[in-house]
Amino acid sequence: MSFNTFGKIFRFTTWGESHGPAIGCVIDGVPPNISINEREIQLDMDRRRPGQSKFTTQRKEADKVIILSGVFEGKTTGTPISILINNEDKRSRDYESIKEKFRPGHADYTYFKKYGIRDYRGGGRQSARETASRVAAGAVAKIILKDLLGKKFKIIGAVTQLGLMSCDLGNWDDKEIRKNPFFCPDKKSVKLWEKYLNSVRKSGSSCGAIIELRASGIPVGLGAPIYSKLDTDIAAAMMSINAVKGVNIGAGMSAAFLSGEENSDEIRKTSGKTKFKTNNAGGILGGISSGQDINVSFSVKPTSSILNKRETIDKKGANTTISVRGRHDPCVGIRAVPIGEAMLSCVLLDHFLMHRAQCGN
Amino acid sequence: MSFNTFGKIFRFTTWGESHGPAIGCVIDGVPPNISINEREIQLDMDRRRPGQSKFTTQRKEADKVIILSGVFEGKTTGTPISILINNEDKRSRDYESIKEKFRPGHADYTYFKKYGIRDYRGGGRQSARETASRVAAGAVAKIILKDLLGKKFKIIGAVTQLGLMSCDLGNWDDKEIRKNPFFCPDKKSVKLWEKYLNSVRKSGSSCGAIIELRASGIPVGLGAPIYSKLDTDIAAAMMSINAVKGVNIGAGMSAAFLSGEENSDEIRKTSGKTKFKTNNAGGILGGISSGQDINVSFSVKPTSSILNKRETIDKKGANTTISVRGRHDPCVGIRAVPIGEAMLSCVLLDHFLMHRAQCGN
Amino acid sequence: MSFNTFGKIFRFTTWGESHGPAIGCVIDGVPPNISINEREIQLDMDRRRPGQSKFTTQRKEADKVIILSGVFEGKTTGTPISILINNEDKRSRDYESIKEKFRPGHADYTYFKKYGIRDYRGGGRQSARETASRVAAGAVAKIILKDLLGKKFKIIGAVTQLGLMSCDLGNWDDKEIRKNPFFCPDKKSVKLWEKYLNSVRKSGSSCGAIIELRASGIPVGLGAPIYSKLDTDIAAAMMSINAVKGVNIGAGMSAAFLSGEENSDEIRKTSGKTKFKTNNAGGILGGISSGQDINVSFSVKPTSSILNKRETIDKKGANTTISVRGRHDPCVGIRAVPIGEAMLSCVLLDHFLMHRAQCGN
Amino acid sequence: MSFNTFGKIFRFTTWGESHGPAIGCVIDGVPPNISINEREIQLDMDRRRPGQSKFTTQRKEADKVIILSGVFEGKTTGTPISILINNEDKRSRDYESIKEKFRPGHADYTYFKKYGIRDYRGGGRQSARETASRVAAGAVAKIILKDLLGKKFKIIGAVTQLGLMSCDLGNWDDKEIRKNPFFCPDKKSVKLWEKYLNSVRKSGSSCGAIIELRASGIPVGLGAPIYSKLDTDIAAAMMSINAVKGVNIGAGMSAAFLSGEENSDEIRKTSGKTKFKTNNAGGILGGISSGQDINVSFSVKPTSSILNKRETIDKKGANTTISVRGRHDPCVGIRAVPIGEAMLSCVLLDHFLMHRAQCGN
Repeated sequence: MSFNTFGKIFRFTTWGESHGPAIGCVIDGVPPNISINEREIQLDMDRRRPGQSKFTTQRKEADKVIILSGVFEGKTTGTPISILINNEDKRSRDYESIKEKFRPGHADYTYFKKYGIRDYRGGGRQSARETASRVAAGAVAKIILKDLLGKKFKIIGAVTQLGLMSCDLGNWDDKEIRKNPFFCPDKKSVKLWEKYLNSVRKSGSSCGAIIELRASGIPVGLGAPIYSKLDTDIAAAMMSINAVKGVNIGAGMSAAFLSGEENSDEIRKTSGKTKFKTNNAGGILGGISSGQDINVSFSVKPTSSILNKRETIDKKGANTTISVRGRHDPCVGIRAVPIGEAMLSCVLLDHFLMHRAQCGN
Repeated sequence: MSFNTFGKIFRFTTWGESHGPAIGCVIDGVPPNISINEREIQLDMDRRRPGQSKFTTQRKEADKVIILSGVFEGKTTGTPISILINNEDKRSRDYESIKEKFRPGHADYTYFKKYGIRDYRGGGRQSARETASRVAAGAVAKIILKDLLGKKFKIIGAVTQLGLMSCDLGNWDDKEIRKNPFFCPDKKSVKLWEKYLNSVRKSGSSCGAIIELRASGIPVGLGAPIYSKLDTDIAAAMMSINAVKGVNIGAGMSAAFLSGEENSDEIRKTSGKTKFKTNNAGGILGGISSGQDINVSFSVKPTSSILNKRETIDKKGANTTISVRGRHDPCVGIRAVPIGEAMLSCVLLDHFLMHRAQCGN
Repeated sequence: MSFNTFGKIFRFTTWGESHGPAIGCVIDGVPPNISINEREIQLDMDRRRPGQSKFTTQRKEADKVIILSGVFEGKTTGTPISILINNEDKRSRDYESIKEKFRPGHADYTYFKKYGIRDYRGGGRQSARETASRVAAGAVAKIILKDLLGKKFKIIGAVTQLGLMSCDLGNWDDKEIRKNPFFCPDKKSVKLWEKYLNSVRKSGSSCGAIIELRASGIPVGLGAPIYSKLDTDIAAAMMSINAVKGVNIGAGMSAAFLSGEENSDEIRKTSGKTKFKTNNAGGILGGISSGQDINVSFSVKPTSSILNKRETIDKKGANTTISVRGRHDPCVGIRAVPIGEAMLSCVLLDHFLMHRAQCGN
Repeated sequence: MSFNTFGKIFRFTTWGESHGPAIGCVIDGVPPNISINEREIQLDMDRRRPGQSKFTTQRKEADKVIILSGVFEGKTTGTPISILINNEDKRSRDYESIKEKFRPGHADYTYFKKYGIRDYRGGGRQSARETASRVAAGAVAKIILKDLLGKKFKIIGAVTQLGLMSCDLGNWDDKEIRKNPFFCPDKKSVKLWEKYLNSVRKSGSSCGAIIELRASGIPVGLGAPIYSKLDTDIAAAMMSINAVKGVNIGAGMSAAFLSGEENSDEIRKTSGKTKFKTNNAGGILGGISSGQDINVSFSVKPTSSILNKRETIDKKGANTTISVRGRHDPCVGIRAVPIGEAMLSCVLLDHFLMHRAQCGN
């Protein structure tokens, strides 16, 4: 049983609060003798890093990853990799005003009720700042997966719905995703999204988002019935991300509306290769990868810390109102893209190792 | 690491194949000295049991629960409860025709590729028959939760979408759910659903469904950041059920479309009680129960074993077609209602025990 | 967290009480496609089986292993193997006299205090009857290890100390062990031991024992620092056996009396092979197997259920005396030999799979 | 499955190598709202700290504990406590000479064979330096246990055998243990031990030790059959400490030599209290604490890094000899006293929480 650990063989444990001296993670079950390039980890960190556009919180964090153990002369040793990320830009004063109140939609209330104590500075442990540690762990997982699966392995995520704004998935372009501040895969939607999010931000409100992840080059056979299914662990991984409220694999919730013929992906052997004619399964059948692309999407609720006044209660139970100032993302969903990629990478590596344990290759 | 075990403190392990001599489960972490009424378990089993209407498989199984251990003179002893359910109505011949072929949408292909061997009779371990074991474990969990939480605790599920047919959630009536063969909560929809599913069945096709679960009487404080969140474990629980492709907590995927104001549930103190004005959170904030009703929904894809001819390949990799005869539910989603209730009960009890471990009450 | 489960990847969960209808285990993490011969399992069961000589309890149990799942057409499928063993010779009346009293040296007192309830019939869950399930799981592990490690793999145990009687380890003969009712490896000691144990038995007393296990053909590299060391898991495995009070690896407790020179096993390359000049390490260095024979010994305390009168208290807390009649081994240590072998087999297979997961071969 | 994590609910994960920038641990499952006094942790650290007498390595480390998370305004918050300890006195040059050779009795050989890579500087991850992290985790556990169990709770360890030198257990004096550099409980033995260890040290050799731990004020009922027995976890905890080769609970290995009458501890009710007339069980019956003192002893093998020349092989497999200079304890067993205390504290707290989860008090 592990409150703050994720994974079964490749496992990471995160620690740290938003306004403590540092945050970090310990990664265990790392295969040995794999080259770890710190710059590659930093690239992923930078994609999640705040303060890079006006559409994310203005907190300034370098998010520089410091590896304290587990890597010797540039290679993994098979022992735990401890990663430390300093908290640099803390402004705990900003939180004095909400110290005694519970922000609606936030975990302020439930943390206090559960533990009888909470670190209110910047949300403490409930802060999305924790996700920096996951991105570091996920970057390590991705480097190892590339080593184990080869060049055909790829994982990419994008925002496909920004509040009320959709995009044309037919225009999905991997390269475009890295070019705009929304991780939007459709070049044509970027300008509209910019206008939209600007108006959301200026109105003191916030909006939600849907993120889609695509992983290719995944071998058939990863996953394990019944309670360690690949999709079971993916669902857990995504739902563990702050503010996520729904997870779909392949056709997801809309599978309910399909007929048996429409839904089940027919199989063909073409030029010696097994091909599926569609991918409603999202690459997973019976909890086991089919060799198709893994396809996952999840929703992120709108940021709960908003300027607009809301009704709530204080620690003593008295009715009051709250208006949250300070530095907040108008759409936390945007930065969930690298986080989702990281979590999916961890799940895939974990299942690769589990499969190797049981089936030997 | 556990392939076939679910839970952290209250844990159950299931075993057995569709056409083996029996299936069953071992339940560990059971609190001692709680009265276990076998009839109460059987009631839940009966709700999942096949062969009760023309809308479920015609396989005839009594699904009689036999308790082999862990209960002494009608009370739990704190030691593992082993439950055995005999397989009575096996017709393995029915599966000879598909022995060499992979049913599209089924785990036939992935099991064979993963393990290099599969028990093809009735789907073997991938069969939904496994879910009988979960319902037994869930029934035990529910009995214990009633003992621990008192009468205010209640858990109920319903089918809210049957293929293309919706129902009016405003008409939700707990009593109605038990009266019709669809677990439909809206009396007015039952006749229409019957017509619809009849036509689906007669056309040799199948349809999907959406199930909604509601749990009330759950204390504030269950759940644990960051990777043992209550919603994380619920998402895993639901996604582990055969054919489930999407999971929502509260507003779920549609949280993406809400504004910060619309989404975050305002809090009021009324007559000494903490009340939330809405429940988009589905009763969970920051992974911890808020005291509101827990609200979960999930989609079930249409049955993959259908009469209508489909393209596929055989074990040797040759292209072929398949048409699946035999006994299959036109909508497996219907019987997912008691299964979802069972899984939710297990997660809630598990988190109750986890909370008691760490916080002491 | 698992109360009744042992292992990390190759895991077994046992269930059942001494006088319930049956006992059994569920084995998970089984590599697929390995031939399982039921007779081979039964051979191990027979070695633990009671009622075979006057030196073990006269309870008559066939201990016939029934495989309910996980094996298809004689081969493992990678899904859980459920094993059931019926309890045939229950005489619960025998225990009426001790129903209200706590046997000194027994878990009667602690079970009752912990759970507030106990199944007193034959010791319930605390009975050594549970070990039959372990032997079944261990037999499966041994079959798989033979498949994975080849013919050079061998595991054998013996009683090297029977109460006050030692034997000459220089006379150790694997074949002799199977020939006498004490699993004594030294033919010359058998007659003396027989006399000794007869006198112990007739005097209404009991005696302890020391068991030694030897495993050969174990590859270098199994085990994992820091908290999943091979010797850590072996110590846990042995200490989990009923009545065990001490565990040694290699030189064990006597390592304390050696000098650095005497203790550390020097290494030589001879004819292309790495050889250690001694084996004080018991085949394990830094928690990892060295390729030498694994060497483990453990002590079993004397049977606590004895005829001779002892002081104790009853359930109400009143002082009283007890004299335990019924069917008891004068030395439970004897039957601990196949149990120890079983547990060691499980640990070794588990670590083989763990190593394969992380290091890939 | 956790390579570098110990515990089930109260869990700690350690990381770090002997000559890396730092070592540390992350402690999860911490009960909230308990006052943590850093000085109290430091006291335990100081007892393990090297360089305090000529009988321990001359490496100079302040071993200052830095708490990075999980404590807010002096109290635990229920979130992970991350502890960092800097490595200050690294002299990696000292290890150049053994870079290519395997020290007999060390894990040099097995680490290299397992992972194909090893951090040879100061033993890397296999170094006893790792145990500083355990002592920190154990100190936290002890503080929490004092809060939960009250003043009657006490845990103390001592060296009872130093190589060939025993001491008189009848003279055991808790206060004396803290006064001499050997943690010897018998004032009369200190001078002799000093002479003895001096001669061992000067001769370029080393010696082993036996450590005994005593815990009092432990409630009845901690521990859980069958595979999470209290003694099972204690055995694992002790065997996980570097250089430990044997573990005894109560009478331990010598239980083999007792008769049933001698061994089983008779029970009496005296002045309303349950008393056992002896404590061969070491406070544990059937894996569950009996309310008596918990009594554990374990052996530590002599330091393997010795000045005297030994035969070995190098990385290429060629025969060679080795003589290890540098800073080494002549008896690593001495510093195992606070480590053993720490591990026992962690096991006891873990079982307290497990018991509270299942049984509710």
